[in-house]
Amino acid sequence: MKETPKSLSPTARVLMGPGPSPTAPSVYEALAKPTLGHLDPEFLLVMDEIRDMQRAVMGTQNELTMPMSGTGSSGMETCLVNLIEPGDKVLVGVNGVFGTRMVDVARRAGAQVTEAQSEWGRALDAELLREAAGGEQHKLVCVVHAETSTGVLQDVGPIREVADELGAMLLLDCVTSVGGLRVSLDEWGVDAAYSGTQKCLGCPPGLSPVSFSERAQSALKAREHAVQSWYLDLTMIANYWGSERSYHHTAPINMLYGLHEALRLVLEEGIDEREARHRLHSAALVAGLEAMGLSPRVPEGERLPPLTAVSVPDGVDDAAARAHLLEHHNLEIGGGLGPMKGNTWRIGLMGAGACRENVELCLTALHDAMSAQGAAPAGDGVSAAQAVYSE
Amino acid sequence: MKETPKSLSPTARVLMGPGPSPTAPSVYEALAKPTLGHLDPEFLLVMDEIRDMQRAVMGTQNELTMPMSGTGSSGMETCLVNLIEPGDKVLVGVNGVFGTRMVDVARRAGAQVTEAQSEWGRALDAELLREAAGGEQHKLVCVVHAETSTGVLQDVGPIREVADELGAMLLLDCVTSVGGLRVSLDEWGVDAAYSGTQKCLGCPPGLSPVSFSERAQSALKAREHAVQSWYLDLTMIANYWGSERSYHHTAPINMLYGLHEALRLVLEEGIDEREARHRLHSAALVAGLEAMGLSPRVPEGERLPPLTAVSVPDGVDDAAARAHLLEHHNLEIGGGLGPMKGNTWRIGLMGAGACRENVELCLTALHDAMSAQGAAPAGDGVSAAQAVYSE
Repeated sequence: MKETPKSLSPTARVLMGPGPSPTAPSVYEALAKPTLGHLDPEFLLVMDEIRDMQRAVMGTQNELTMPMSGTGSSGMETCLVNLIEPGDKVLVGVNGVFGTRMVDVARRAGAQVTEAQSEWGRALDAELLREAAGGEQHKLVCVVHAETSTGVLQDVGPIREVADELGAMLLLDCVTSVGGLRVSLDEWGVDAAYSGTQKCLGCPPGLSPVSFSERAQSALKAREHAVQSWYLDLTMIANYWGSERSYHHTAPINMLYGLHEALRLVLEEGIDEREARHRLHSAALVAGLEAMGLSPRVPEGERLPPLTAVSVPDGVDDAAARAHLLEHHNLEIGGGLGPMKGNTWRIGLMGAGACRENVELCLTALHDAMSAQGAAPAGDGVSAAQAVYSE
Repeated sequence: MKETPKSLSPTARVLMGPGPSPTAPSVYEALAKPTLGHLDPEFLLVMDEIRDMQRAVMGTQNELTMPMSGTGSSGMETCLVNLIEPGDKVLVGVNGVFGTRMVDVARRAGAQVTEAQSEWGRALDAELLREAAGGEQHKLVCVVHAETSTGVLQDVGPIREVADELGAMLLLDCVTSVGGLRVSLDEWGVDAAYSGTQKCLGCPPGLSPVSFSERAQSALKAREHAVQSWYLDLTMIANYWGSERSYHHTAPINMLYGLHEALRLVLEEGIDEREARHRLHSAALVAGLEAMGLSPRVPEGERLPPLTAVSVPDGVDDAAARAHLLEHHNLEIGGGLGPMKGNTWRIGLMGAGACRENVELCLTALHDAMSAQGAAPAGDGVSAAQAVYSE
C-alpha cells in the first residue's frame, strides 16, 4: 500500500437489484447513533423492542425470535445446524440458488438429504416433494418462500401438508418476503424461518432475523450432540436474548439500531399496506417490461412482487446493458444466477425502493440501454406502467 | 406489542469496558454513507482498500486477509473450522475465557484437543504448552495474544518455538491487540489470526478481520472434508474477496464502510504512535488505581495496555459500583468473567477511548462510587495519573 486511502464517498445508486435495497434516511441515521455496550440496561430494552417488532413483522408469537449476528446466509445455517443432528433425514425443495444452498448446508451438518429438484423459475409442486420423500418419515422439510434467484413466490400451505404427512418440521427461507409481504409463520405452521435485513426491510445487509416454533425449541433442547457451530448455537444465544442476558458474543450494536428503525418503518406503514405497495409497483413494472417486449421468467400467479425476473432479449448483451444502466443512469439491477446467468435480469422493488419513481426510471433506463445496443424496444414501457397506476 | 416503539435515542456513554469502545465521529459518518451493491465496481475498490489497510494494521503480506461478516467470535470459528479436519490434534493454551472458547469451538469441529490450563491473569509459559503436548506432533497450536477476559498480553515468540517443535501451525487471537498495539503476524510466524472491530480499531462490533499464511492456505486447499460451516467457508469466501468476485453472501456494506474509516484512522495516526498512546494512558490509569489502593490483577510486564483488570476492593459491591458509574457518571466499565466474576473490574482504554480525559473521569468516578459505599479510597488517583503525564 503506497499511501493511506481517503475517506469514502460512495455514489448514491438507485438500488434495484436483488438486494441490498435502498436504505431509508432514518435507518442511516439510526446506524450512526451512539454505540451502547451490549450489556447496558438501555441496550437490553432495545433488544426487547427489536424482538417484539420482529415477531409482529414475521407473524409469530414464537419466544425464540431474534436477529442473528450475520447476513441472511448465517440465518439459513443457524436454522439447519441447530435442528439437524448427524444422520437426520432432511427433504429440500430445490428450484433455485437458495434451495441448492440449503442442501449444501444441511449435508455439512451431517443430514441425509433428499433433494426434490424442480424447474427454476417455477413454484414447487407439493406432489413432487411427496414423491421425493418416498413415504419415509423426515426430521425437516425445507423450502424457499421467496426465491431471490428466480423471483418465485411459494405457496406454503400444501408444503405444510406434506411435512405433516412426513412427521417433519417445516423450515422456510423468507429472505425476500419479510417486510414486503405478509408473512404468517404461526398461521402457516412454520417451525423455523430466517430472513435478511437488506431486502424488503430496507436496512443494510448484516443481520438475519430468525424465528423458531415451540416444536423446534423442543427439538433443540432434546439434542444429543452439541450444535456444530459455536457462533450460531441457539442454546447459548437464547440466553443472551432471553431473561438471563448471559454474554455470548458482542452484539452488533449499531446494525441492530438500523434494524430497529427498519422494523419500526414497516409497522408504521402497516404490513398489508406495505404488501399492497410492493404488489402495485411490481404490477406496473411487469406491464412496462411486457410492453417493451421483455418476457417475465415466472408465470403469473407464481411471481414474487419484490423481485421480477425477465429474460434478456435476443441481441442484447447482459453485462454490457447492466454496465450501461450503472454508468449512464446510476441504476443497479441484478443479473441471473446458475442456469439464468447471462440470460435473465432480476429487478428488485424492495422496501423504500418499491415506488413509482423507480419503476419509471428503470423502464426508461432499460429502453436506453437496449437502444444503445441497437435493440430498441418496439413498445413504450413507461406508458404501460402509467396505465397500471391509473387503474 | 401494544404500540410501535419510537425511534431510538441512545445515551452517549463513555465506553470504558472490554468493548465496544468509543466510535470516532468519522466512523459514525462512514456507517451512514450510501449503501452500494456488493458487486458494484465501486464497492469492489472499497474491498481492496480494506484488505490493503488490514494487512498493514496486522503486519502481514498474507493474500488471504479480509474481514469476516460476523463479530470476533465468528473470526475465531472461521480460523478453527477452516484449519481443523476431524481427528486433527490441536493444542490450546487456556488462561482465560477466550482460550476456553477456542477449546469448545475446536472440539465442535472434530479436533482432538489438548488443553494447556494455566492461571487466569498470567501469561502462558511456553514450557507448559510443551509439556501438555507430550512430544506429539500437532496440526495447530492456539493461544490468545490479548486476553480480554483477564487483561493479559502474551509474548508470541516462545509459543512459536513450541509450535515449530510440534510441526504445528500457530493460531493467534488478536481481538484486543489489533489497532492498539503493533501486531506483526509475518514476523511472529502466525499462520491464522482473527480480531474484532469493537476494541482498539474503534468501529462498532459486527466484523472480524482475519488473516491466513501461505501454509494455512495450503492446508485449506489440501482438505479432505468440506469445511463444516458454509457461512465461514474460506474456500468460497476467498473467491468473493479475490479476483473472481464470485457471489457468496451479501457483504455487510455499511459496516465495511465503518471498518474502512477505522483502519484509515489507525494508519493516519501511525501504529507505533497508537501503541505509545495506548501504553501512556494505561500507565496513567494503573498509577491512579494503585494510588487509590486498587490492585492490578496482572503482574507488570504481562499487562495488556488497552485493558486493565483490577481487584474490586474489599467491602465494595461490584454490581452496585458499576451501576453507580453508569447512572451518575454515564461511564461503562466491565465486570469480571469466570473465576473473576464479582471480584474484578475490567477497564478499557481502546481506540479513541485511550485518552487523558477518560483516565481522569474513570478515576474520579471510581472514587465517587467507592465513597458512596462507604469505602472511600485513601489516596488520590487523579494526582497519581497526572504525575505520569508530567514525566
